[in-house]
Parts: sequence; C-alpha cells; structure tokens
Amino acid sequence: MLPLPALPVEPSVLLLWMDLVGIFIFGLTGGTLAVRHKLDIFGVLVLAMACALAGGVLRDLLIGAVPPATFRDERYLWSALASGVVAFFAHHWIERLSRPVMVLDALGLGIFAVAGCQKALAYGLAPLPAALLAVITGIGGGVVRDVLVSEVPRVLREEIYAVAALLAAIIVIAGSRLDLPDAPVAAAAVAAAFVLRLVSVWRNWSAPRAPWS
Amino acid sequence: MLPLPALPVEPSVLLLWMDLVGIFIFGLTGGTLAVRHKLDIFGVLVLAMACALAGGVLRDLLIGAVPPATFRDERYLWSALASGVVAFFAHHWIERLSRPVMVLDALGLGIFAVAGCQKALAYGLAPLPAALLAVITGIGGGVVRDVLVSEVPRVLREEIYAVAALLAAIIVIAGSRLDLPDAPVAAAAVAAAFVLRLVSVWRNWSAPRAPWS
Amino acid sequence: MLPLPALPVEPSVLLLWMDLVGIFIFGLTGGTLAVRHKLDIFGVLVLAMACALAGGVLRDLLIGAVPPATFRDERYLWSALASGVVAFFAHHWIERLSRPVMVLDALGLGIFAVAGCQKALAYGLAPLPAALLAVITGIGGGVVRDVLVSEVPRVLREEIYAVAALLAAIIVIAGSRLDLPDAPVAAAAVAAAFVLRLVSVWRNWSAPRAPWS
Repeated sequence: MLPLPALPVEPSVLLLWMDLVGIFIFGLTGGTLAVRHKLDIFGVLVLAMACALAGGVLRDLLIGAVPPATFRDERYLWSALASGVVAFFAHHWIERLSRPVMVLDALGLGIFAVAGCQKALAYGLAPLPAALLAVITGIGGGVVRDVLVSEVPRVLREEIYAVAALLAAIIVIAGSRLDLPDAPVAAAAVAAAFVLRLVSVWRNWSAPRAPWS
Repeated sequence: MLPLPALPVEPSVLLLWMDLVGIFIFGLTGGTLAVRHKLDIFGVLVLAMACALAGGVLRDLLIGAVPPATFRDERYLWSALASGVVAFFAHHWIERLSRPVMVLDALGLGIFAVAGCQKALAYGLAPLPAALLAVITGIGGGVVRDVLVSEVPRVLREEIYAVAALLAAIIVIAGSRLDLPDAPVAAAAVAAAFVLRLVSVWRNWSAPRAPWS
Repeated sequence: MLPLPALPVEPSVLLLWMDLVGIFIFGLTGGTLAVRHKLDIFGVLVLAMACALAGGVLRDLLIGAVPPATFRDERYLWSALASGVVAFFAHHWIERLSRPVMVLDALGLGIFAVAGCQKALAYGLAPLPAALLAVITGIGGGVVRDVLVSEVPRVLREEIYAVAALLAAIIVIAGSRLDLPDAPVAAAAVAAAFVLRLVSVWRNWSAPRAPWS
C-alpha cells in the first residue's frame, strides 16, 4: 500500500467549504429529480451523488489534482450522501419552493463556478483557461444529471446558463488581479451568477437564435 | 519518443486476471445489446469495447494510474475485441440464457467492483473512497453502454445494483483489514455481489420509494 | 499560485495546427447541429465548444498530458469559440453543402485520429494502444455532441466510421515505423480516412449484421 501523492497546492479553507456546500446543493437537485422520476432510495442516492460529485471530480482531473479531492477527503462523500438522504425524505418540503431544481441548480452553478475558477488559478492556469474550467465545473454536475435521465442538458436549452457561470469566473479573476480578499469576492461572484440566472428565468429573457434558422 | 512513466504500484496477477475476465464479460453485454439494436459488426465492436473498457479506464484516471492499464497492456484490447467478436457470432447461444445482459452484467459488476476496490486500496485510498471507487468501476461500463444506446442506465432504474457493488467492496475492505489472503476474499466478494444482484431480480425485491412522491 | 507542470514532450508545430484545424471543423458540426435544434446563441457556442474540445481533452487525460493542451494554449479556445460564432452566423451557407454535418464530421474525424495517433506515439504508447487512442480522439467530439442532443452516436449507427479513424491510425503508425516524414504521412492519413468515410456514405456501403439477429 502506498501513501497518496502530495498535492502541489493545499486547498484553502474557503475552497473546501464552497466544495462541501456546492456538493450538497447539487446533490439536492439530483435527488429531487430522481424522486420525481419515481426512482427508489438507491436510485435517488446514486443520482444525487453523481450529480453532486461530477463537477468537482472533472475539475480535479483536468488540472491534474489526482486523486480528486472527493477521494482524499471523506467529508465530500458525507456531504453528497446527506444531500441524497435529505432529498429522499424532505422532497415534500423542497417541492414547496417554486421550481426547486432550477433555483438550487442556479445556486450550485454559482458556487462551483467560483470554486473551479479559484482552484484553476491556484494551479497556475491563465485567466481564459481558468474561466473555461470554471464553466465546466459549474455545469458538470447538471450535465451528468440530465444525461443520466435522458434529457437534453439545460445548459443547451436555457438562455442564460453558461453565461452566469462565466460572469462568476470574470468576477473571481478580476478580484484576483486586483488582489482583493478571496472570501468577499467569492460571495459577490456566487451572488452575481445566482441572481443573473434567476432573473433571466423569471423575466423570461431570451437570447437571439441564428438568422434564417 | 518517450518511455511510459513507471507505475507507482505494479498490478498483481490477481488484479490482471480479474480485469481481463471482467472486460470480456462486460464486452459481451455491450455486444449482445448492440446485436439486439441491429447494429452492424463495427457498431457491435465499438459498443462492446466501450463498455468493456470504460470502467477500468475511469478507475485508473481517478487514482492517477496514467496512462491506464488499457493503454499499457495489449491483452486488455484483445480481451475487449474478443468479447465483441464472440457476441457478434454467438449471440444466438448467449440469448438462450434467460435475460443474458442482466446475468452477465451482474457478474461483470461484481468482478469490476472487486478489482476497483483492490486497486484503490493499493494506491493508498482510505476505505470509504475505495468503496466509492469500487462502485464507480463496477457501474462505469454499464452506464456508458446504456447512455450510448439512449436508455436510462440500469443503476438508476433497478433496486439492488449499486448496493451489490458496495457489498463486494465491503467484503474486500474487511478482508484487507483482517489480512486475509486476496484471492479467496476476491472470489467471495464477486460471488456475494453476483448472488445478491440475481436474487434481487428473481425475487423482484424492491426498495422503498420516497414518501408522498 | 503555481507554475504549470512542464510537459514531458513538447507538441510539434504539425500537431498544434492539426489540433487547431480539427477543433474548428468539429466545432462547426456541433454549432450547425445546435442551430438545427433551434438553440440560441449561447447553446450554439456551448455545443460547438464541447464538441470541438472533447476529443483532444480526453486524449490528453488518457496519455497523462495534464492539464490538457486546451487549458495551456489559448489558441485552442479561440479556435473553438470561432467555430461556434461562424456556425451561428454562416449556417445558411454551411447548409448548402450536401449533408454538411456528415462531411465536416468526416474531415474532423480524420484530423483528430491522426493527431491522436501522433501524440500517443510521442508519449511512448505501443502501436495497438496508439491506434485505440486515435479512434477515441477521433470519435470523442462526435459522441459528446450526439449524446448531448439525445441521439445515438453515429459511431454506433453508421457502417464505416470507427474504421475510417482506424485506417488513419494504421497509416500514421506505418509511416512512423518506416521513418517517413510526418507532414506528408499525416496528410495522406487524413485524406484516406476522409475519402473512405465519404465514399462509404455515398455508395451506401453496409457492413454485415449478426447472423440470426
């Protein structure tokens, strides 16, 4: 048996907490959707965990932080598992939110985009690749969730989605350039992505379709 | 041209054989499903190979054993290719099994869960992450297969599936803690997962759905 | 912040250009399909980029060139982005090609298969694994594209597809064994795959289906 290879950059406490909260939120969306699809308890747990953990695992594979944090720190698993259990027993309350999957998904999108961008910058990626990685981290869980239940992922169907993740990334990158403190910048970026996404849905904003299509 | 990077842990003979047998079994499920979908010989080979190799490749990416064993040892490819050829020419006999895809899939699930767990432990993962990796390795090939033919993966639809992989992982982890010899523990774990899965299908066990769903 | 880890092999100029052109071509197929599915500008950009970048990212993950070139060299992103913008505004002209997605996809398939094979050989893979990696790189973008819009990937549905990528790989491997210069071999291999794929579609070649299926 082998010790795990050391990480080139230790994760900050802020990143750890964003990951744990983002995992829980995204897991709730997967679990809620699974309950709606009449899956049993095990199907709910699998979909919740897949959707909670996919974005972060993909991020860590792409920046070379292997094994991913999910396999290094057991709190990741407990957070994902808890989200599935909560979705299973509390979906009755979750469904009282208007459009709960959309609202929770918007929050998870913002949190994971910020976490993806911070970790990418810490691993030395340039701003543009870091923004791409932020978008991938943000949308990853939702894409896996929607593909697994055979739906076209909402990142393709809905107007302001990847753009919300991109906005979060731009704020994080600007904050890092200006040497602003991490935590307030992260909070502002999550809030900006979340609000932009929700307002776009509530106001029914639409983006242009191709001319002559 | 470059020599391949050395692996931190040389694979054991037991792991190699489990991989080769698991690849062949999983390839048969993909090939059989492809024949049922009326795919031609090339479609059969592609689906057989994708489904044979996906779980192990994913496992090796996640533990950092890169390039994955599939790209280091040509026997992996020959086993996957052979499974596609056999499925193409012998599907008539395979179909005489009652529900052949389900039965073969149950066996592959057990073998890959055990192989995934052993390799994860050898690479230094803690028990809980090793169990998650075992489940991912076990279900990976089947998820890829079902998504490629646009079906909801059976890990989401069927009651006792991920749980069977988890049972195999628990037996391997317990055996490793108790310093029992690898081969009999592996055999017991594969058998336990296989039997649990089959019995659950034959007895039509069902897991609870969410209350008020 | 951390400097990016050095690559074990610097990419050749030929490989860089094949990657950039292949990305643009594959992105056009994704963008064109997105316009047909009536997606808005953001959906078009996301599908174009996913499909442009997926094959190369997967290739680099599998050979251990991490972070993948896409996250090291901003030209990859600009090429992918440009393909989406062009597909959005010029789809009217693109559609004048007979079966534009198929034709562009055939060209991208050849280019990426050759790029995948060359990079795999440079990283020390043996010929057979290099050929498998070539096929994965060639088909990766198209599989992602088709799965995201809930279609069965064309690599499974169409007779001569993976085989065209394999032909390109065989030519590259033979050229490398015979120490022929890279650029003409690459051109011949791309042309062979492209022509084989187009002719098979135009002549409606079909491969055998399983007996008694």
